[in-house]
Amino acid sequence: MSIITLTTDFGEADHYIACMKGVILQHAPTVRIVDVTHVIQPHDVVHCAFVLRQVFDYFPEGTIHVAVVDPGVGTARRLLAVRYDGQTVLAPDNGLVSLVHRDFVMEELRVIQNTRLFHQEVSATFHGRDILAPVAGDLAQGMSLDNVGPIISQLEILNLERPTPLPNGGIEGQVLYVDHFGNLISNISQADVEAAAPGNTHLFNVHVGPLRVGPLRATYAAVAPGEIVAVIGSTGMVEVAINQGNAADQLRATPGNVIALH
Amino acid sequence: MSIITLTTDFGEADHYIACMKGVILQHAPTVRIVDVTHVIQPHDVVHCAFVLRQVFDYFPEGTIHVAVVDPGVGTARRLLAVRYDGQTVLAPDNGLVSLVHRDFVMEELRVIQNTRLFHQEVSATFHGRDILAPVAGDLAQGMSLDNVGPIISQLEILNLERPTPLPNGGIEGQVLYVDHFGNLISNISQADVEAAAPGNTHLFNVHVGPLRVGPLRATYAAVAPGEIVAVIGSTGMVEVAINQGNAADQLRATPGNVIALH
Amino acid sequence: MSIITLTTDFGEADHYIACMKGVILQHAPTVRIVDVTHVIQPHDVVHCAFVLRQVFDYFPEGTIHVAVVDPGVGTARRLLAVRYDGQTVLAPDNGLVSLVHRDFVMEELRVIQNTRLFHQEVSATFHGRDILAPVAGDLAQGMSLDNVGPIISQLEILNLERPTPLPNGGIEGQVLYVDHFGNLISNISQADVEAAAPGNTHLFNVHVGPLRVGPLRATYAAVAPGEIVAVIGSTGMVEVAINQGNAADQLRATPGNVIALH
Repeated sequence: MSIITLTTDFGEADHYIACMKGVILQHAPTVRIVDVTHVIQPHDVVHCAFVLRQVFDYFPEGTIHVAVVDPGVGTARRLLAVRYDGQTVLAPDNGLVSLVHRDFVMEELRVIQNTRLFHQEVSATFHGRDILAPVAGDLAQGMSLDNVGPIISQLEILNLERPTPLPNGGIEGQVLYVDHFGNLISNISQADVEAAAPGNTHLFNVHVGPLRVGPLRATYAAVAPGEIVAVIGSTGMVEVAINQGNAADQLRATPGNVIALH
Repeated sequence: MSIITLTTDFGEADHYIACMKGVILQHAPTVRIVDVTHVIQPHDVVHCAFVLRQVFDYFPEGTIHVAVVDPGVGTARRLLAVRYDGQTVLAPDNGLVSLVHRDFVMEELRVIQNTRLFHQEVSATFHGRDILAPVAGDLAQGMSLDNVGPIISQLEILNLERPTPLPNGGIEGQVLYVDHFGNLISNISQADVEAAAPGNTHLFNVHVGPLRVGPLRATYAAVAPGEIVAVIGSTGMVEVAINQGNAADQLRATPGNVIALH
Repeated sequence: MSIITLTTDFGEADHYIACMKGVILQHAPTVRIVDVTHVIQPHDVVHCAFVLRQVFDYFPEGTIHVAVVDPGVGTARRLLAVRYDGQTVLAPDNGLVSLVHRDFVMEELRVIQNTRLFHQEVSATFHGRDILAPVAGDLAQGMSLDNVGPIISQLEILNLERPTPLPNGGIEGQVLYVDHFGNLISNISQADVEAAAPGNTHLFNVHVGPLRVGPLRATYAAVAPGEIVAVIGSTGMVEVAINQGNAADQLRATPGNVIALH
């Protein structure tokens, strides 16, 4: 049974997601559909790129990921079908695949152009339903990726900040993502930390802006409830949290704020 | 594999939806369940009627749509099973099917009365779980609609505003629905627009109350980010949006506000 | 087809749930996954225990319920596999099963310790994905519960308030749960009411704090819209609501407030 995942900024109150599912099921009656999230901040391409990257590690070969955060719908922006590691992403060409692209080997890149695959009427404002859903359904039914359109050589990649080494041997990065618990997930990976101080990562002190958080700990509950703590989180990135609290609210921190290891 | 869709105002924090699904699965272990939305505004029958109408175009024959916005639960209000175009709606008789009813041919109308199909104990406050879920499951398993109860001839239809022609050749309608993006979806259809000015729809100017939005454009991004725009949206209706913004918030517009084409 | 349900406080905006589902599907490609809710209040063990108890009545034998509200993740707290009535709960040992435990016969209690079942890398902060998801998948594929780890004899049970008899023949309880509609669900069951006044339950008057609500009625709509009403709700508990309104908002009531029958 193939899998189609859906990641969008469509929200949960409207008919949009269900219409996409209805179309998918008309093309692929036995496919399994997994909702990743539909509450990406409206038009927030970075948020979507991060979520897509996280799920990529946990789905099997053959999975088709449909991602729709698409402020340019109806303009000349292209729709892409990109294959990495045996999984396929269908998405507008606006940077949504940037983080998957950084970490996986791209195997095939095509532009979706074959109008015979589209819904009979294509609206100008909902290509998720009228183009991506039927194409995803057909691919799940075994259609070859060749059919969607020609191979191209370039795609849009977001210019995201990368952590930088500090003169004193530390690392400076940024908050990349704030999750539901208010945890601040940085762009500093476990590998970055280990490269900066091989065998001595316990000597680092983590800071959020001017605030000293302390060393990297094993888990949130290594500190008392209500206390601030830094860990290597489940995403493999340095993360700052408040045990049983909300760090983003309490520190008024948002994506882009500096997180540094000294 | 048959499909049951669920559209309710039950919210997402409680056990209500999962209980309905558990009951459905005990009656129809292999049915596919699609959540349309569970965050219909509590008791908002119009919102639910709109969403149900939108999904109706995209699901295959044989689909069973269960809609539960039911402020009259436990009173004498009836529960209906209505077939349109080979799809069946199970819902309280309070107007939820009004927009489907307007646009599709009704094939069969029955009142759900056969208590042998119900859950062994029927609560007075949750007929979605105790009556509609087991009936939907049995129908998905192939039970004939005859079994639910007798044919009736009348059902409750909402008295919704229709757009009216203006003396100058324009059309006056209302905001029918505000979506997750804050887009204002009106009750003026593409057909209404074309009938009012055959071949000349590009001459119309769209207004929200006293505010002049401009002509109908192809898509949101036909204007700069932050600018207001009118389109024929993916629902086939005239829609007013702010490109990458939230029109409802910015214009303080709500359902019932006047949208006119001059 | 076996069923796995998911009940968590992970929210709906992040990748966490989808990662769990990806892992489950790699272990059990044909299992059916039912989301109960992911918006349990962060770290609210009582809320989760209540929801889990409610769904337990409506799922078939063989269902596996994964519940993750886990403020102690990564500490010495244990992960449990507990069987009641042919259904299995996988959850941290922090009281999540308390209400199921009160009402069902426990058939088997094990601690999850068999690391060969875990994801190849186990993070310190996301045992839902790295331990519970693969174990749930394997159990759904037919693995015996023996394999998860040794039998133990004790588990954490929440010390929840129980209703108490009043000298005048009444009952005093508390608000246990506030649902999406703002209905106040108490810890006083239909059985408690019947035991207190066999054959005379219509004589009771329900109170929320000092406010007199009136007798137990059949359904919300037994009073006019906007009026306060007490019923035996669909959970089988005494419930106070406002017909087509929100009792929690209007009465400023929260879990723990006194509800009494006089």
